[in-house]
Amino acid sequence: MIKKYSIKELLNNGNFFLEKKVLVEGWIRFFRNSIFIALNDGSTIKNIQIVLSKNIDKKLIKKITIGTSIKVIGILKKSIGKKQSIEIKSLYISIYGKVDQKNFQKSILQPKKHSLEKLRKQAHLRFRTSIFSSIIRIRHHIAFSIHKYFHEHGFFYINTPIITTLNAEGAGNMFQVTTMDLKNIPYIKKGDIIDYKKDFFQCKTYLSVSGQLEAETASLSLGKVYTFGPAFRAENSNTSRHLSEFWMIEPEIAFYHLEENMNLAENFLKFIIRYIIENCVEDLSFLKENIKKWNQEDNFSILDRLELILKFPFKRISYTEAIKILEKKNKKFFNPVIWGMDLQSEHEQYLVNDHFQHPVIVFDYPSCIKAFYMRINNDGKTVRAMDILFPKIGEIIGGSQREERYDLLLKRMKDTKIDDKKLWWYLDTRRFGSVPHSGFGLGFDRLVQFITGMKNIRDVIPFPRTPNNAEF
Amino acid sequence: MIKKYSIKELLNNGNFFLEKKVLVEGWIRFFRNSIFIALNDGSTIKNIQIVLSKNIDKKLIKKITIGTSIKVIGILKKSIGKKQSIEIKSLYISIYGKVDQKNFQKSILQPKKHSLEKLRKQAHLRFRTSIFSSIIRIRHHIAFSIHKYFHEHGFFYINTPIITTLNAEGAGNMFQVTTMDLKNIPYIKKGDIIDYKKDFFQCKTYLSVSGQLEAETASLSLGKVYTFGPAFRAENSNTSRHLSEFWMIEPEIAFYHLEENMNLAENFLKFIIRYIIENCVEDLSFLKENIKKWNQEDNFSILDRLELILKFPFKRISYTEAIKILEKKNKKFFNPVIWGMDLQSEHEQYLVNDHFQHPVIVFDYPSCIKAFYMRINNDGKTVRAMDILFPKIGEIIGGSQREERYDLLLKRMKDTKIDDKKLWWYLDTRRFGSVPHSGFGLGFDRLVQFITGMKNIRDVIPFPRTPNNAEF
Repeated sequence: MIKKYSIKELLNNGNFFLEKKVLVEGWIRFFRNSIFIALNDGSTIKNIQIVLSKNIDKKLIKKITIGTSIKVIGILKKSIGKKQSIEIKSLYISIYGKVDQKNFQKSILQPKKHSLEKLRKQAHLRFRTSIFSSIIRIRHHIAFSIHKYFHEHGFFYINTPIITTLNAEGAGNMFQVTTMDLKNIPYIKKGDIIDYKKDFFQCKTYLSVSGQLEAETASLSLGKVYTFGPAFRAENSNTSRHLSEFWMIEPEIAFYHLEENMNLAENFLKFIIRYIIENCVEDLSFLKENIKKWNQEDNFSILDRLELILKFPFKRISYTEAIKILEKKNKKFFNPVIWGMDLQSEHEQYLVNDHFQHPVIVFDYPSCIKAFYMRINNDGKTVRAMDILFPKIGEIIGGSQREERYDLLLKRMKDTKIDDKKLWWYLDTRRFGSVPHSGFGLGFDRLVQFITGMKNIRDVIPFPRTPNNAEF
Repeated sequence: MIKKYSIKELLNNGNFFLEKKVLVEGWIRFFRNSIFIALNDGSTIKNIQIVLSKNIDKKLIKKITIGTSIKVIGILKKSIGKKQSIEIKSLYISIYGKVDQKNFQKSILQPKKHSLEKLRKQAHLRFRTSIFSSIIRIRHHIAFSIHKYFHEHGFFYINTPIITTLNAEGAGNMFQVTTMDLKNIPYIKKGDIIDYKKDFFQCKTYLSVSGQLEAETASLSLGKVYTFGPAFRAENSNTSRHLSEFWMIEPEIAFYHLEENMNLAENFLKFIIRYIIENCVEDLSFLKENIKKWNQEDNFSILDRLELILKFPFKRISYTEAIKILEKKNKKFFNPVIWGMDLQSEHEQYLVNDHFQHPVIVFDYPSCIKAFYMRINNDGKTVRAMDILFPKIGEIIGGSQREERYDLLLKRMKDTKIDDKKLWWYLDTRRFGSVPHSGFGLGFDRLVQFITGMKNIRDVIPFPRTPNNAEF
């Protein structure tokens, strides 16, 4: 039997296979002069050139069209062409699946420039385009490097629940999960209160917006843990940075103070970016050369921007210092700068793009704009929060040292109207050997967006869920 | 500054650190003779022994109780005790968090044997028990080895959607996802039809039971892909093998026939099990020695059972052959054996435990009991399905070669009343260079259950979701 190879294996180890008989399978990307096929199998952005033999059946040639899937057996040769160093001289070709010519004209498989919007409408086929397959391969490498980083640093992967009774954080709207018949909702004694005892879980349930609270309980025993799973926000905002369903990474670390948390986050981000620069050379080069076709207004180079992240330590400033910097440029902004406000996108962009021209970590935010679980500082008005702001996309990581002191946590929950009865188990962890601990959240899709340089987050996830759109 | 180490680092490299000053942090597991602390930080099942100095403050000693979290600075010494080779002679101890003595008696932190049921009720604290922390560490290593296997074999990780409009498979009940006010459901023209145009996605949506169909579209371009994400079944069955929310791995491979699919699945399972035997020695040993305390009726050794999986090639038989074997023992079974029936648990267990005493792959099932997307054989009545049956737990993997022929797929969809309009995009992939392709699904939690030997699947996932239970 003739051994099958991926196109990536052959292109990366060309010399080793020279003059050998090989088998490859893939989809036809181009067909020139009735002789040269450019074949792609998804293993790499690059195509391998197949040279048809002169005595090939003419009927077969008619079937060789763009998008058709074929099997090729041939001899690997040095190529005399300029564009490739090796090619396959075909001995045998068979066709797996033809292309429906009637529908081909409307499809994004047609070899011309299609808009990213059109690609999204054919999400099932856009994996076949160079740009989207590149993005998905890079997305894979980012995911893998995340697991690799945490694994090598002694973290344990944890699955936190997706279906939850918690709507505690109050962070925007949530999706409800139910098995009740919506035409026949049961009420308690025909009153105005829905009888959730009749629902699947015997209570009202939602899709989780974060696994942090559960991950904390795990870290308070296992030391270092991380989650990597889907999270959901039912916000009706159609922006280029938001998805209704997205993937999130949330490490939690016991015995960690805020500064160690910042060190970890910076070290982690730099590891990922270095890994991608080293392991995704071909896909990054393709994006570097071609992304302007799609993101016209962008004038930067992807690689330059990634390397800038690695170059220096991230700038660290307190929220109060940030406000002082912004106050000096107050008239620049649409939203006036006042201590106590949440930083708006324009403020973040000014700090990162104009003032520091480098990633910035802002820490010690006012307690009034941050969540109940963040550790309160001795000043009584700021909390040990930190946000990492990146060029172009703004906040990429949000984290904090968690409030480990039972009394202060309970008080904060009461002050912010969090249901402490429902969170009995979360409070409980502060009664049985509580320790200082910290963690952060990273939006996976937003990180992919930053690394690939795509303008719209819908173009970095296979099947985006956004308001009014759950197709495929 | 004195360097901090994990207890795992110190125990694994004891000789290297001898006579050095070290810092460790963790929770007190035991305290003997007012001198010896057994400290655990979650990095390993093992505790490190701390020897208090004789001139320690008597007030501090009173605070040293089980569950309390402490920081220790001391000198690493050879131990003269028999149970450990090294220990830390303490120079300095400080306490982070005390234990609420009033509630300690009721908690599972109290050092005595608690039932697994009681552990589940304190899911936020059970990470602190030896058995559950062992399981979660093993669970981590299984997850990591899955990513490692696929990454090294050229697969790309894909995120398929969790929120879906598809209820196509008809495989049991699904959870509905909505943002509509259940007290005020909108109807079309005050009729009997709910106006889903007013719901978040402008249509009826569910939690996905599988990412297979979407993963197929990705494989038909990228070649080899896999998913690893949550899946949901709203079945009201309270068994020791089912969760309402579970994690699933679904590889899909283009240009793969059923036999290659079986080879992959067997190779993959053996890789995972070998990896766990090699990388989780201490946690497996703990389970081996202690699991009888919990799973009393079990008399087997975990390691023996894992090694049995590795020992021989899995036995492969067609469904029709399986039926013939079962027919010979017909009177043994509660469910009579008839060609065309789905294999029941008792049948699977007979094949695996009694007849072959080894894992079995059953293939070529009757089409009438399998899903519409499986490739029909030339006999017109069986499909290219395969299930891998394991000792004790039964089906661990279910897979198939997919129907790649447009006409046959469409016919099968119509015959089985699948909405082909809704699945236009799935059908579409069979019109643009379709290829033979295959894949399978593996329940992650069930694999963890098999490897750890736990009787109840609720004891291998941090926060199980089952009918009537979504706490934490």
